[in-house]
Amino acid sequence: MLFAVRMDVDIPRDLDPAVREETVAREKAYCHELQRSGEWKRIWRIVGLYSNISIFDVESNARLHEILSGLPLFPFMRIEVSPLTTHPSAL
Amino acid sequence: MLFAVRMDVDIPRDLDPAVREETVAREKAYCHELQRSGEWKRIWRIVGLYSNISIFDVESNARLHEILSGLPLFPFMRIEVSPLTTHPSAL
Amino acid sequence: MLFAVRMDVDIPRDLDPAVREETVAREKAYCHELQRSGEWKRIWRIVGLYSNISIFDVESNARLHEILSGLPLFPFMRIEVSPLTTHPSAL
Amino acid sequence: MLFAVRMDVDIPRDLDPAVREETVAREKAYCHELQRSGEWKRIWRIVGLYSNISIFDVESNARLHEILSGLPLFPFMRIEVSPLTTHPSAL
Amino acid sequence: MLFAVRMDVDIPRDLDPAVREETVAREKAYCHELQRSGEWKRIWRIVGLYSNISIFDVESNARLHEILSGLPLFPFMRIEVSPLTTHPSAL
Amino acid sequence: MLFAVRMDVDIPRDLDPAVREETVAREKAYCHELQRSGEWKRIWRIVGLYSNISIFDVESNARLHEILSGLPLFPFMRIEVSPLTTHPSAL
Amino acid sequence: MLFAVRMDVDIPRDLDPAVREETVAREKAYCHELQRSGEWKRIWRIVGLYSNISIFDVESNARLHEILSGLPLFPFMRIEVSPLTTHPSAL
Amino acid sequence: MLFAVRMDVDIPRDLDPAVREETVAREKAYCHELQRSGEWKRIWRIVGLYSNISIFDVESNARLHEILSGLPLFPFMRIEVSPLTTHPSAL
Amino acid sequence: MLFAVRMDVDIPRDLDPAVREETVAREKAYCHELQRSGEWKRIWRIVGLYSNISIFDVESNARLHEILSGLPLFPFMRIEVSPLTTHPSAL
Amino acid sequence: MLFAVRMDVDIPRDLDPAVREETVAREKAYCHELQRSGEWKRIWRIVGLYSNISIFDVESNARLHEILSGLPLFPFMRIEVSPLTTHPSAL
Repeated sequence: MLFAVRMDVDIPRDLDPAVREETVAREKAYCHELQRSGEWKRIWRIVGLYSNISIFDVESNARLHEILSGLPLFPFMRIEVSPLTTHPSAL
Repeated sequence: MLFAVRMDVDIPRDLDPAVREETVAREKAYCHELQRSGEWKRIWRIVGLYSNISIFDVESNARLHEILSGLPLFPFMRIEVSPLTTHPSAL
Repeated sequence: MLFAVRMDVDIPRDLDPAVREETVAREKAYCHELQRSGEWKRIWRIVGLYSNISIFDVESNARLHEILSGLPLFPFMRIEVSPLTTHPSAL
Repeated sequence: MLFAVRMDVDIPRDLDPAVREETVAREKAYCHELQRSGEWKRIWRIVGLYSNISIFDVESNARLHEILSGLPLFPFMRIEVSPLTTHPSAL
Repeated sequence: MLFAVRMDVDIPRDLDPAVREETVAREKAYCHELQRSGEWKRIWRIVGLYSNISIFDVESNARLHEILSGLPLFPFMRIEVSPLTTHPSAL
Repeated sequence: MLFAVRMDVDIPRDLDPAVREETVAREKAYCHELQRSGEWKRIWRIVGLYSNISIFDVESNARLHEILSGLPLFPFMRIEVSPLTTHPSAL
Repeated sequence: MLFAVRMDVDIPRDLDPAVREETVAREKAYCHELQRSGEWKRIWRIVGLYSNISIFDVESNARLHEILSGLPLFPFMRIEVSPLTTHPSAL
Repeated sequence: MLFAVRMDVDIPRDLDPAVREETVAREKAYCHELQRSGEWKRIWRIVGLYSNISIFDVESNARLHEILSGLPLFPFMRIEVSPLTTHPSAL
Repeated sequence: MLFAVRMDVDIPRDLDPAVREETVAREKAYCHELQRSGEWKRIWRIVGLYSNISIFDVESNARLHEILSGLPLFPFMRIEVSPLTTHPSAL
Repeated sequence: MLFAVRMDVDIPRDLDPAVREETVAREKAYCHELQRSGEWKRIWRIVGLYSNISIFDVESNARLHEILSGLPLFPFMRIEVSPLTTHPSAL
């Protein structure tokens, strides 16, 4: 089941630099792992912003929430979820 | 060059039904043609709305505008364009 | 899979009264049928508005879109969809 | 009397971790108690957010305010209240 | 039980003048009747607008919806409902 | 001259508790005094929020500003002022 | 008593041209008369818009509403009213 | 050349009280000076807010920016600028 | 004096096609003339929209309003005006 | 390829003054360098704001993101990007 998710990241300026670095590294690893498992199908950067548009393919709403709330940067993100389905014009 | 485009369609109720049908058919053919050429890479329906989220891969802003302003349903759409680039975490 | 859906209805004033009456009647029958099948679990009126908040339990995003886009009043509605999951505090 | 309530939680990052843990635990207990008493009828998590949609069944506006303003996480929530009534299509 | 209700009226320009006049007259009579019964406690005009702020005292959400949806001008209004309760500083 | 005023209170978390308590107490006393003088005619709590809707009856804009800007909690409030007048349907 | 009022005008395209011309002329005369009486103290055009910002000096809210609701173009305007008072830095 | 400018002031709570007092005093002196020179033609307080609406008469955009960005409270203001011109109905 | 102006065009569907064509042609000629005179310095299309961003260089607010309100498509545009000045980093 | 970019700057008050000064100086140098290379074609200050409107001419979305995310003040900016193309009326 497909979902478009937009994530806008805003890491607080006063976060300890080591914590910041480690959190961003964990975020990347987490993202890689889910891309490899096929659930995080695509991720693009939005030009000029610390934001991404992603496509997820998951078995349920519950699984999507598990993934998103588990993001290491989750506490510093604004997230918008749009459930998708096949478009009648898609080939 | 990649762009995310959201299109919200609102066809006026008083449009002649034959014109409506013909316009929607032309929209579909136009969309198919651009998917086959590789410029309209993906199109998804947003659940519960007469809307889509699409990914375009075009050589320039000018070409994207040519495509979007040429949509048969263009006069009846609200369009939002987000320029995309590679995300550093994308595999 | 659960979804909260808000529907705001705005039937055009110039809709033929017979068509209006027939469409509203079909809407009601459609809603009843989906409540009986268990997919449209709950529907409440929002006080002072021609709007409802509903809970759907469907097997997929695709099925939810099929249901919503098939609503007889769909052309006259603004719809907002929120995917839900179990809350950790729910008994 | 029914109300739909949406709660968006934003716990300040600098809240003492022990206070945070204790407050979240009290919130859960408070929520359980009101579910058992039948006033907090339903609570769902919104996917991707630290938010819930709840249904309350209370005897008065005053009682609903007493419940909501007594939430241990009340100082860290944005709350929206929608009074509900029976929908004519509800079975 | 108290509610603050704001009503913004926008009567379509092409409404038949006789229908308009008759509807506005019925609205006034309806409002008078509910003031006399004590349910529509107060109504004020907002300066510069075709809008009012009103205070209702009703026994339930259901009764408030019955009153508001029965307003002769209901199809031409935007309505906002705020449930109220006693303020701890009120004398 | 009548005004509807909505006040949304947001006291900073790091305000000294003694200052907070003293300020809230002064706010209450100030409110009582103005209710007794007849200028702060009504105050209601909005359900689920740290907000009120109030009705003021003052001799001038200048006096209303004097009252509002003198509120002990003024630095922690968002305030909206709506000038009111008699509604033609009011009894 | 001073008020800043912003008026955004949107005359429907299908208004009879003679009615339009006559209404605009009456609006101008009405505005002149109130400037001469001293109640409509100032009026400026906002660059690029069919809008004005005006300053009124009236004895009461009731009088301001009487003036604004009597504008010949009132049915075609969006109006915002801001009550003003003397600024402590004004000379 | 005329401009309407709205300024909403929000001085941070943790600003040193002496700095605050001194900055507000400089703001007042700055405002007086520009009123005397004729560039800051009018300033009114908006009732219930720490905000003003002002009218400036300056020779150029550049001069207006010089004035506004030089305000002692500039770092603590939200500013909106509306270019004005003569209204055809102004006497 | 420089201004950035955004124009969003929405020509009503029921405008007579000959009038539409003639108006659009006059708009183009008007735009050309002002580009040649040096007042309409730049105009760009925004991708995917019937909108432009333009830069004007005029001697006064009054002249800018004269230009904008004289646009043949003025009745069908939403216009936003931003006064500009030299940026300290501009070469 | 052209883009209009609006940048609103908000440097935190508690940034170390030396860091602030150094960052602003680097921003200026960075801006100069890109103006000289021809990619940052124009930059204007918006009157009354710590904001600019800029025109970029870059070979790709990727390059624009590289430029914008490399701005020394990037962490303190809100950025809006509008892809542009030639306007049919441009000379």
